[in-house]
Amino acid sequence: MIGVVDNLGFDILAHHGAAFRECAPELELLRPGEVTDPAAVEFVLTFRPPDDCFARYPNLRAAVSPAAGMDGILACPSLPPGLPVLRVEDPDQARQMAGFAVFHVLWHHRRIDLHLEDQRAERWNRPAHGRSPQSRRIGIMGHGNMGRAIAQALAGLGYPVRVLARRPAEAAPGVEIMLDRDAFLSGTDILINVLPLTAETRGVIDAALLARLPEGAALIQIGRGEQLVEADLLAALDGGRLAGASLDVFAVEPLPAGHPFWRHPRVLVTPHTASAPESRNVALCVSRGLAALRDGMEATA
Amino acid sequence: MIGVVDNLGFDILAHHGAAFRECAPELELLRPGEVTDPAAVEFVLTFRPPDDCFARYPNLRAAVSPAAGMDGILACPSLPPGLPVLRVEDPDQARQMAGFAVFHVLWHHRRIDLHLEDQRAERWNRPAHGRSPQSRRIGIMGHGNMGRAIAQALAGLGYPVRVLARRPAEAAPGVEIMLDRDAFLSGTDILINVLPLTAETRGVIDAALLARLPEGAALIQIGRGEQLVEADLLAALDGGRLAGASLDVFAVEPLPAGHPFWRHPRVLVTPHTASAPESRNVALCVSRGLAALRDGMEATA
Repeated sequence: MIGVVDNLGFDILAHHGAAFRECAPELELLRPGEVTDPAAVEFVLTFRPPDDCFARYPNLRAAVSPAAGMDGILACPSLPPGLPVLRVEDPDQARQMAGFAVFHVLWHHRRIDLHLEDQRAERWNRPAHGRSPQSRRIGIMGHGNMGRAIAQALAGLGYPVRVLARRPAEAAPGVEIMLDRDAFLSGTDILINVLPLTAETRGVIDAALLARLPEGAALIQIGRGEQLVEADLLAALDGGRLAGASLDVFAVEPLPAGHPFWRHPRVLVTPHTASAPESRNVALCVSRGLAALRDGMEATA
Repeated sequence: MIGVVDNLGFDILAHHGAAFRECAPELELLRPGEVTDPAAVEFVLTFRPPDDCFARYPNLRAAVSPAAGMDGILACPSLPPGLPVLRVEDPDQARQMAGFAVFHVLWHHRRIDLHLEDQRAERWNRPAHGRSPQSRRIGIMGHGNMGRAIAQALAGLGYPVRVLARRPAEAAPGVEIMLDRDAFLSGTDILINVLPLTAETRGVIDAALLARLPEGAALIQIGRGEQLVEADLLAALDGGRLAGASLDVFAVEPLPAGHPFWRHPRVLVTPHTASAPESRNVALCVSRGLAALRDGMEATA
């Protein structure tokens, strides 16, 4: 199959090209300038497409994201209505996310920031707070393959874990599915957001949501930057309701120098690094997804 | 049963007394000065006993540690030969240990120290290193209830996990038991020590052991301070073999001001805080242990 790679800000071919040649040799990947016959292009590989990304190709079968998110594709004005959108669902990436989330749960629960301060002061200062995982209730927003991996890891470590969902769902042992948003929030000491970005989740972490968390709660934001109202988070931190926040995603990335998050003493900033699929897994997953799509289309043709 | 509480440096009664009164009311706990009839004392509750701790009581049935370690009791010169020694085996504490170990694995694997530096410099700097847990092989020394909890948590997060053991043992899925020490060490990128302190494990982490780890390895030391030859660790860090170390236990605690660990840029110091059993669990575990001992002794009397 012939595909076009057209992405803003991140060179997908430079990054994943070798893995595609090795693991998905049946896919021919072209840059837009290399396309001589637009009618032969069957898919576009992108996660941050330019506005006219899909306009030139009349015979597309799919838009393909080489990442977990497809919000960039779905927001593109030239995306043909009804075109199937594929994305990478990589168990290895879900486990990266789980490890990263566990790290930040421990960072907030065990106040590692204070240990770092104590170390700088050469001060032996054993904390009085409870070390038991039972002392921190974890709330997770998002129950896709990443949310489930995070929930399972934290439940396995003894944390009480609840997931906010819109309908009843199966969950791992020790994980409770909650449908009542207010009860979920008021019982959450550490809130983890891994929702996908949609019209409904844009700005979902706002003053109203943060006000429902118990005093001293912490936020781990590893979904999408546009889901957080940044000014509301700063107000909740400075007003004392929130004890801390770990932020890996931002409304504007890279996070601009001078942004108040960089210097906030209770914010831990990381550069959208929580997880990324390995190139081999991207190539294999895209290859399998396109094969299934082609087989399905041929079967019904 | 009547017990004496006699411990150096940590007031067990001030800490756990209320929980014992609530959860183990059948145990009468006295300070040494309160004992009027030494012959009535059936156990001593301590983890750092003074040298003559056990000398006064002719009818002891047990020495009881309110912690996971019993090395302090075993080293006491007045411990009567053959006296049963009980300790706390608390699943909640094992999970605390597992969470703490996972935190430090992520700290080293994901180089969170560099992210903190970047944040101070307001620098968006996405790392080039692999995020996949498959890229770091974990080696664990110690396979008691803590070692097993740590192994299971890290295997669940996708890390390749191996445990060094003296004989074949059952292990959780994804955990490999290794008997060959050299092969274990040369294949360990992040070494976690949770061995108990014994004559055999004293000084076990020395220059010879560290030299067998691959270049760039990291050490997570959450066993006992006396197991590490501190000068050898500093040499391995400064010589570049070791990339970093997380140290929670030390030969001398509190770690003295001015000790080189405090200021070492690649050492993370925490104040023996990895885990501690909750008071209720201590009281319940001691109560059950003494009841089982008494029942067993009466059954064989």
